[in-house]
Amino acid sequence: MDKKICIAIDAMSGEDSPFKNIEGINLFCQRNKKDDYFFNIFGDEEKIKVELKKYNISNNNYKIFHTSSIVSDDETPLTAIKTSKNTSMWNSVYSQIKSESHISLSAGNTGVLLVISRMILKTIQGVSKPALAGLWPNNKGMNIVLDLGANIDCDENNLIEFSEMGSALYKSLFPQEKPKVALLNVGSEEYKGTDIIKKTYTKLKEISKNGDFIFNGYIEGNEITSGKSNVIVTDGFTGNIALKTAEGTAKFITDNLKSSLTENIFSKFSLIFSYFSLKKFKNKLDPRKFNGAIFLGLNGPVVKSHGSTDSVGFYHSINLCYNIVKGNLMNQIKANLNHLDETKH
Amino acid sequence: MDKKICIAIDAMSGEDSPFKNIEGINLFCQRNKKDDYFFNIFGDEEKIKVELKKYNISNNNYKIFHTSSIVSDDETPLTAIKTSKNTSMWNSVYSQIKSESHISLSAGNTGVLLVISRMILKTIQGVSKPALAGLWPNNKGMNIVLDLGANIDCDENNLIEFSEMGSALYKSLFPQEKPKVALLNVGSEEYKGTDIIKKTYTKLKEISKNGDFIFNGYIEGNEITSGKSNVIVTDGFTGNIALKTAEGTAKFITDNLKSSLTENIFSKFSLIFSYFSLKKFKNKLDPRKFNGAIFLGLNGPVVKSHGSTDSVGFYHSINLCYNIVKGNLMNQIKANLNHLDETKH
Repeated sequence: MDKKICIAIDAMSGEDSPFKNIEGINLFCQRNKKDDYFFNIFGDEEKIKVELKKYNISNNNYKIFHTSSIVSDDETPLTAIKTSKNTSMWNSVYSQIKSESHISLSAGNTGVLLVISRMILKTIQGVSKPALAGLWPNNKGMNIVLDLGANIDCDENNLIEFSEMGSALYKSLFPQEKPKVALLNVGSEEYKGTDIIKKTYTKLKEISKNGDFIFNGYIEGNEITSGKSNVIVTDGFTGNIALKTAEGTAKFITDNLKSSLTENIFSKFSLIFSYFSLKKFKNKLDPRKFNGAIFLGLNGPVVKSHGSTDSVGFYHSINLCYNIVKGNLMNQIKANLNHLDETKH
Repeated sequence: MDKKICIAIDAMSGEDSPFKNIEGINLFCQRNKKDDYFFNIFGDEEKIKVELKKYNISNNNYKIFHTSSIVSDDETPLTAIKTSKNTSMWNSVYSQIKSESHISLSAGNTGVLLVISRMILKTIQGVSKPALAGLWPNNKGMNIVLDLGANIDCDENNLIEFSEMGSALYKSLFPQEKPKVALLNVGSEEYKGTDIIKKTYTKLKEISKNGDFIFNGYIEGNEITSGKSNVIVTDGFTGNIALKTAEGTAKFITDNLKSSLTENIFSKFSLIFSYFSLKKFKNKLDPRKFNGAIFLGLNGPVVKSHGSTDSVGFYHSINLCYNIVKGNLMNQIKANLNHLDETKH
C-alpha cells in the first residue's frame, strides 16, 4: 500500500450499479486535485470498464479487481457468510486485510456488510460491540449519531464505548472542534430514563475527565439539531428509529412545501424570485450530503452508502472515506480506547 | 352532571395562564354553536374572572371552582402527591370522581399530572400500564401514536393493551375509519427487532382477528407519516424520542426555510406571490393543531396540553376533549378490552 489514501469500492452495490459508483468516483476525482488517493474497484470488470470509459480518470488512480458475484438485497446475513466469498462486497472489505486498502465502501445489503466486515476485520480488542455511526446536520454544522441500528440491545459499557469511538470519529472529521457527547433520553433531568441510561450517565461523567470529550448529559430528541452537542449516543433500536423518523419528517414537510409552492399560478410565479434562495435551502439540507454510515469498532473502517442514492450521494460517501483515513480514525479510536482503559483501572 | 359534555379545565396550567386557558375556552365557544358543552374551570377565581370579562361567554356554559395553589413546573411527582390537594390540577381531575366532569385538561407538569390522574382515577381493571397517546399528521390525515413517554419499559402485554386502547381512541375520534395498527421497529421483516417486539407481533396477528383493528405488522420511523397505518404502537422511551425528534426536525427545516425566503430582496419579493400558498402550508402543519396528549387506561380520560402553546393550541386541546367524550372513548376502550379478554381465554 503506497502513501496514497486507498479506498476499496464495491462497484456492484446499490441501485444503478456500477453506473453511479463509477460516476461517483469521477465526481470525486474532478473535485479533488491533490492526487493523494487511489481506488481499488471490485466487481464485474467488463461492466466497470464500460463505465470508466465515459470519464477521464487517470489509470494511476485505480485498479480493477474482477469478482464474479454480487450480494443480493434479500440475502440474509446468515447465508451470506457461506456464499459471499466471490462477491464484490467480500473482496472489497477483504482488501483491507491484504493491506491493499485503508477503508472500504459499499452501497449494498447493510446486514450482510456488517456481518462480513465483522468476520473479516474482527472487532478491536476491548470493544464489545461495533456500532454504526452517521452524520446528522445541526444548527452549527454536523453531528455524529450512533448507534444507528447495528445493536438492538446495548448496556452501559456499549454506550460508553460508543461515546469514545464517536468522539474519535468526530475528531478525525472535524479536527478543529472538541467532541461534545450527549446521551439521547426522554428528559434532561438526572433521574429520568432507563437503568442502563442512568448508569451510563454516571460513568460518562467520570470518564469524560480523561479529556477525550466534553460530556453534556442528556438531551431529548428535539435537541439533536441544536448544535450544543455533536456526538449523540444511543442504542441501535432508538437510534435507527430516531434517524428514520427524522428522514420521514423531512420528506413529509418538503413534499408538502413543494405541492404548496406549485399549487397555483401565483405561487408558481413566486418561484422565479425565490429560485436561488430555495435552491440554497434545498442544497443545505440535501440528504445526499450526509450519505454514508460508518462501522466503528472493527480493525479497519467500513462505510455503508444508502443503496438508493445517486452518484452525487455516492460521491459524498467516497469523500467521507477519504476524510476518515486522512483524519486518522483508527489511531484516534485506539487512543480513546486506551484512555478509557486507563480510567477503568 | 347534565347531558352536556363537561370539561374540567386546569386554568392555572402552562405559560401565560390563566390568560391562554380562558381565551382558548372563548375560541371554542365561538366555533362551537351546538351549546352541548360545559366548562368546570379550576383556579384562582379572581384572576379567572378578570379574563372571562374580556369575552362574551354565557354563564350557562361554565362554573368557576376556586383553588388556592398551583403545581409548579419543577415539582417532582413524588412530592406532588402530598402537596397538591389544593391545586387547580388535582381538583380538575378530582371533579371526574365527583361526576362533575367527563374529562379534564391541563397544560401543567406532565409527570405530576400522570401521577395525580392515576391516583385519583385508578387504572381500568385489566390494564397493566396507562399510556400517553398523541396525534401525528400523516399523508392521509391523522395518526395516533402511543406510548409517548408514560412507560419507559414495556413488555408485550403492555404493547398489546396499547394497540387496543389506541384503536379505541382512533375510533372515537374518527368513527368513519378503521384503525390500522402498526408496531414501530427497525425493519419490516418478521425476524427483526427485540424479543418483546417479536412476541408482540405474533400475538397481535392473532388478536387482530377479533376485529378491533387491522394489524399491519412492523413499520420503520420513515413510514409514520405514510398514512398506511394510523395507530402506531411503541414503548414510551422510543415513542418519546421519535416524537421529539420529529418536532425538532420540523422546526429545523422550517427555520431554515424561513431564513432562506427572507435572505434577500428577490426572495422577500417572492413572498408576495406565494403568501397564500405558504400560509396554507404553514396552517396544515401547524403543531398547535396536534396539541394534546391523552392518558389512556384510567377510569376517565385526561388530556395534557403543551405548556408552552398559546390560546389557539389550548383551544385545539379543548376541542380534542370534546371529541373524545362525544366519540365515547371510555366505552370504546372497555369494549376493546373485553374483546382482548375473550381472545385470551
